[in-house]
Amino acid sequence: MQPEEGRNRVIIEDVTPEIDAGRYPIKRIVGEETVVQADILADGHDALSCALLYRKEGDAKWTELPMEPLGDDRWRGSFRVQELGRYCYTVLGWIDHFKTWSRDLAKRVQAGQDVSVDLLIGAELVEAALKRATLVHAGWLSTFADALRAGGAEGARQALSPELARLMHLCDERRFATTYDKELGLVVDRERARFGAWYELFPRSCSAVPGRHGTFKDLEERLEYVASMGFDVLYLPPIHPIGRSFRKGRNNSTVVGQDDPGSPWAIGSVEGGHKAIHPELGTLDDFRHLIEAATQYGIELALDIAFQCAPDHPYVSEHPEWFRRRPDGTIQYAENPPKKYQDIYPFDFETEQWRELWEELKSVVQFWVDQGVRIFRVDNPHTKPFRFWEWLIAEIKRDCPEAIFLAEAFTRPKALYGLAKVGFTQSYNYFPWRNTKWELTQYLTELTQTQVREFMGANLWPNTPDILPEYLQFGGRPAFMARLILAATLGPSYGIYGPSYELCESRPIAPGREEYLDSEKYEIKSWDIDQPDSLRELIGRVNQIRHENPAFRANHNLHFHEVDNEQIIAYSKSSEDRSNEVLVVVNLDPHYKQSGFITLPLEDLGIDPRQPYQAHDLLTDARYLWHGTRNYVELNPQTVPAHIFVIRRRVRTEHDFDYYL
Amino acid sequence: MQPEEGRNRVIIEDVTPEIDAGRYPIKRIVGEETVVQADILADGHDALSCALLYRKEGDAKWTELPMEPLGDDRWRGSFRVQELGRYCYTVLGWIDHFKTWSRDLAKRVQAGQDVSVDLLIGAELVEAALKRATLVHAGWLSTFADALRAGGAEGARQALSPELARLMHLCDERRFATTYDKELGLVVDRERARFGAWYELFPRSCSAVPGRHGTFKDLEERLEYVASMGFDVLYLPPIHPIGRSFRKGRNNSTVVGQDDPGSPWAIGSVEGGHKAIHPELGTLDDFRHLIEAATQYGIELALDIAFQCAPDHPYVSEHPEWFRRRPDGTIQYAENPPKKYQDIYPFDFETEQWRELWEELKSVVQFWVDQGVRIFRVDNPHTKPFRFWEWLIAEIKRDCPEAIFLAEAFTRPKALYGLAKVGFTQSYNYFPWRNTKWELTQYLTELTQTQVREFMGANLWPNTPDILPEYLQFGGRPAFMARLILAATLGPSYGIYGPSYELCESRPIAPGREEYLDSEKYEIKSWDIDQPDSLRELIGRVNQIRHENPAFRANHNLHFHEVDNEQIIAYSKSSEDRSNEVLVVVNLDPHYKQSGFITLPLEDLGIDPRQPYQAHDLLTDARYLWHGTRNYVELNPQTVPAHIFVIRRRVRTEHDFDYYL
Repeated sequence: MQPEEGRNRVIIEDVTPEIDAGRYPIKRIVGEETVVQADILADGHDALSCALLYRKEGDAKWTELPMEPLGDDRWRGSFRVQELGRYCYTVLGWIDHFKTWSRDLAKRVQAGQDVSVDLLIGAELVEAALKRATLVHAGWLSTFADALRAGGAEGARQALSPELARLMHLCDERRFATTYDKELGLVVDRERARFGAWYELFPRSCSAVPGRHGTFKDLEERLEYVASMGFDVLYLPPIHPIGRSFRKGRNNSTVVGQDDPGSPWAIGSVEGGHKAIHPELGTLDDFRHLIEAATQYGIELALDIAFQCAPDHPYVSEHPEWFRRRPDGTIQYAENPPKKYQDIYPFDFETEQWRELWEELKSVVQFWVDQGVRIFRVDNPHTKPFRFWEWLIAEIKRDCPEAIFLAEAFTRPKALYGLAKVGFTQSYNYFPWRNTKWELTQYLTELTQTQVREFMGANLWPNTPDILPEYLQFGGRPAFMARLILAATLGPSYGIYGPSYELCESRPIAPGREEYLDSEKYEIKSWDIDQPDSLRELIGRVNQIRHENPAFRANHNLHFHEVDNEQIIAYSKSSEDRSNEVLVVVNLDPHYKQSGFITLPLEDLGIDPRQPYQAHDLLTDARYLWHGTRNYVELNPQTVPAHIFVIRRRVRTEHDFDYYL
Repeated sequence: MQPEEGRNRVIIEDVTPEIDAGRYPIKRIVGEETVVQADILADGHDALSCALLYRKEGDAKWTELPMEPLGDDRWRGSFRVQELGRYCYTVLGWIDHFKTWSRDLAKRVQAGQDVSVDLLIGAELVEAALKRATLVHAGWLSTFADALRAGGAEGARQALSPELARLMHLCDERRFATTYDKELGLVVDRERARFGAWYELFPRSCSAVPGRHGTFKDLEERLEYVASMGFDVLYLPPIHPIGRSFRKGRNNSTVVGQDDPGSPWAIGSVEGGHKAIHPELGTLDDFRHLIEAATQYGIELALDIAFQCAPDHPYVSEHPEWFRRRPDGTIQYAENPPKKYQDIYPFDFETEQWRELWEELKSVVQFWVDQGVRIFRVDNPHTKPFRFWEWLIAEIKRDCPEAIFLAEAFTRPKALYGLAKVGFTQSYNYFPWRNTKWELTQYLTELTQTQVREFMGANLWPNTPDILPEYLQFGGRPAFMARLILAATLGPSYGIYGPSYELCESRPIAPGREEYLDSEKYEIKSWDIDQPDSLRELIGRVNQIRHENPAFRANHNLHFHEVDNEQIIAYSKSSEDRSNEVLVVVNLDPHYKQSGFITLPLEDLGIDPRQPYQAHDLLTDARYLWHGTRNYVELNPQTVPAHIFVIRRRVRTEHDFDYYL
């Protein structure tokens, strides 16, 4: 069967970025550029014109921008989005008969051929355009058409004039134009979605009085400390009432002491569930006050969303249909056979009442949005359906496009990426287990230099309350310094769980395990934050450097450089306008001084290889005069295991001396 | 808004093969395997089951085959198609609750836990399955359910029995199964679409009497010669009446002599158009007789489809609306400004009467199909719309699925691949211009080891009437031998334009040009096919080797091997069952003897590195006893510039001697 219209000669293929054939949107932040490329071609030798279209979802009108040919039938266009929310984009291409004619005419004129008939063909094209033109343009076009019909050298000159080309472009025909068969999605977030330093702490450990349960008020006192280290986001583990049945004791023991506070992730008791606040922390008013107090310090609060219930959560009695029942009448607890987690009831997402369950869970997030929370760290998202998250995040962001969701997706690679695709703004990832130069180079290249960067924002955490990596257990303070600097400079978003981190807490529950000894998840801690060997100052300095150097705000600009020592890693980042170029060099060996030669691609860095340039270490304020592609570095882990250089291209010479001329 | 059904927890991504998000079908030949892989995953830790579905287009019923997990959430299945035509395939996955339960039960049993409640859960699953089962299966399932309810060690033993697993699999639930959202296409061709040696000749040059216009009868006499070289396909340039207006003379001259026969591609005169036969060649009956005679020799005839007209083609007067008219009333001839081809009128595919034009062009192909032709070599397909070809080829193959279309797509890479995607069975390609080891390795790897192999069958031609590559101009007979062997062994399909090729005709029209001097396109030739230095025997030997060694029939099994000499290229191919393993070594230097060491990956070739093996040269019948990964080769271009080895893994030892034991 013949198609409706067989004259659409242009075909469009391989549009980038495009995630899973357009099934999922890409992500950008406000003001950021989206570069779109496509293979656009037609049969024969006719010239094409192509355009990039984009619009905010719901808008009827597309904004159109021209695309430029890159050669090899590849076209490129770009646009910048200025508003939060969902956009879509697509491309189109058409045979441009005027452009074809004009290109060919130029060749004929150059070859000295008789072009009288060609000028008449051109006149016909101009006269056809006239009917599509505005009144003003029509007047001009009519004059051109007459000139072409008059022919001769003057006709040819007018035919090839840029004015005529511009006019013809303005009312181009686009007959049989081909529009790409997909409208591709784009989610625009605010800058915090991309760039931010996170700090996790347990509010209950914030009391100034050792042993006493900390409150939101105590936490307010702690804000100055957090702010002094330059953090942007303060993330709190769940703040809800903690279940009492099957409560876990210290060190995750099934034997619980009278005063053991339990894990904050065992959510729900007679005192309430996911919309309630643990009474010992304070009231909802206290919480709202805390948000405001944090805002005064430039800190935004992030809450934990853990969709699971302690056995005494009100949902269990009010909505037994949301849980799986066992033949003996009990409710199915969480399991990873043969391990049993009897303190946790998972929701049954295959329940007949899934619609009500979804709505209720959405109302939980909405409740906290209504209290002023805009950032959510989602616990174990990979144990709830992908489609559920896709729906929930879209629902919340429809009215609150500034919402940010960080997925604690410590799961298999494709599930991790799958959650990012369905809507999570950011994701935890395998950074805690990437420690050698090869591992870091491979993994960060995957995260920042492949399609992954289009849909996933990596948030790099060297530790969490569940993860004390071996490298930190054995490397001592130098290891904590190195991992902090790596996390803070490899990615625009990173976080630490403190004060454990800055105090270099490194004792695991047992050799070969990654859980903390005496984990804060099961007990109230009293941290001596004024310890003299705290990393507080270093962290503050690093976060200040991040804020002052725009190169650290982007995700796609990471490049690794060769060092002739496997213990030293070096990478550079640059701001979009290339005005800020940073080079980070880290000694990955926490035990020994290491040295080596770094090889830099000077041309890529915009450095004249014949001129010296300055490597200014922002950590120590030391300045090194470098020259050429290979330069020496030496790093002692006992002092500072890294350089964070800003590269200054221009170095003063005698020409700059006041009286030189 | 909530989805219709929120409980489809499985997601399916990255299905391969899949061309342009399923827009185009992949290609296979009858009996060939299609391996399908997909990322199939769900939230949580439940076990999945996945299936591959395929069916012939139009069939209501899918054939289902199980998929196997490869790890990392990747699944694999495969099927073989046995009929010509169009198929489609897709995949599906579901949470397998019984498999999950059974996997977990095994762990609990192993851990010595009390499983009484778990056995009751299992009994519920079995009882639910019972309702979906056939009567026979239901009986068995009922017995199992009772055993599970009875519990104890025997209950656990029965619960984990493979019989129960098999029964449960037969009536698995598949509630909330996810089917991939695309049905992917597959075109199945006959073996000749993949594997064949082509020979092009001009019938008018086949007369035994020099200077006389050859006929189909003369060509019948020439069939024995073509068959003696082992060719499978005989391709004839257009056999239609040749236009007289603006006819080109010898060497493409615009000055034409009285007796100049013109180019066969200038189709159409008062004697008829695309459905007529040039009177000097014979009649339609002669043509049909020729087809039969060729069939006797095991040779299939291929015709040229060149959709363009000489100015005196009947279409021009009968259908002026199919051509573009210039303002001076003349018809637009073909151009590549400033070059003009006044002997050729292209069709205007943007005509209002495009529907009628398409139908007429289809009727041309159908006409020759009706005469018994099944193979078409399409001239300049890239100057007609992609959508037109997609329609035409699908239309023809619907009733004649054995039709084969070879695209003369000497155009830009994306247009070349685009034509393959829209339906061309095979394509000419850049092989004529790939001559060095690096070029050949890169290009053949692209053609055979990337997605390209899924949709494009490369046909490798070292020459054509339009292309006499520089390598052949300067390399003499050794170059012709080397390029013949490369074409015949690098790809399953190849062809030469002869007798020019076997007679090593190497004179270009001018230095730096690739056109032949005194091109056969514009004059009748008389070839001395019995010349003593003809490559006829070598070609016959090579084609015989191709036929006898199944390794040469496939396209995806090509692997290049290291040689410590840039002038020597080495590659191996193997048959699907690995019973036939060939190694080709070619000296690319047509002037000097070259030698070097080949490094072979013995493990991949199934060779014991501790045992000797035999490299048997099928060209010279020489046998070499090789050992280990590195072996010496030496090739003299003046004798034979290549080895075509069959690798024999087993070599006789004293153990094989009759009285050894």
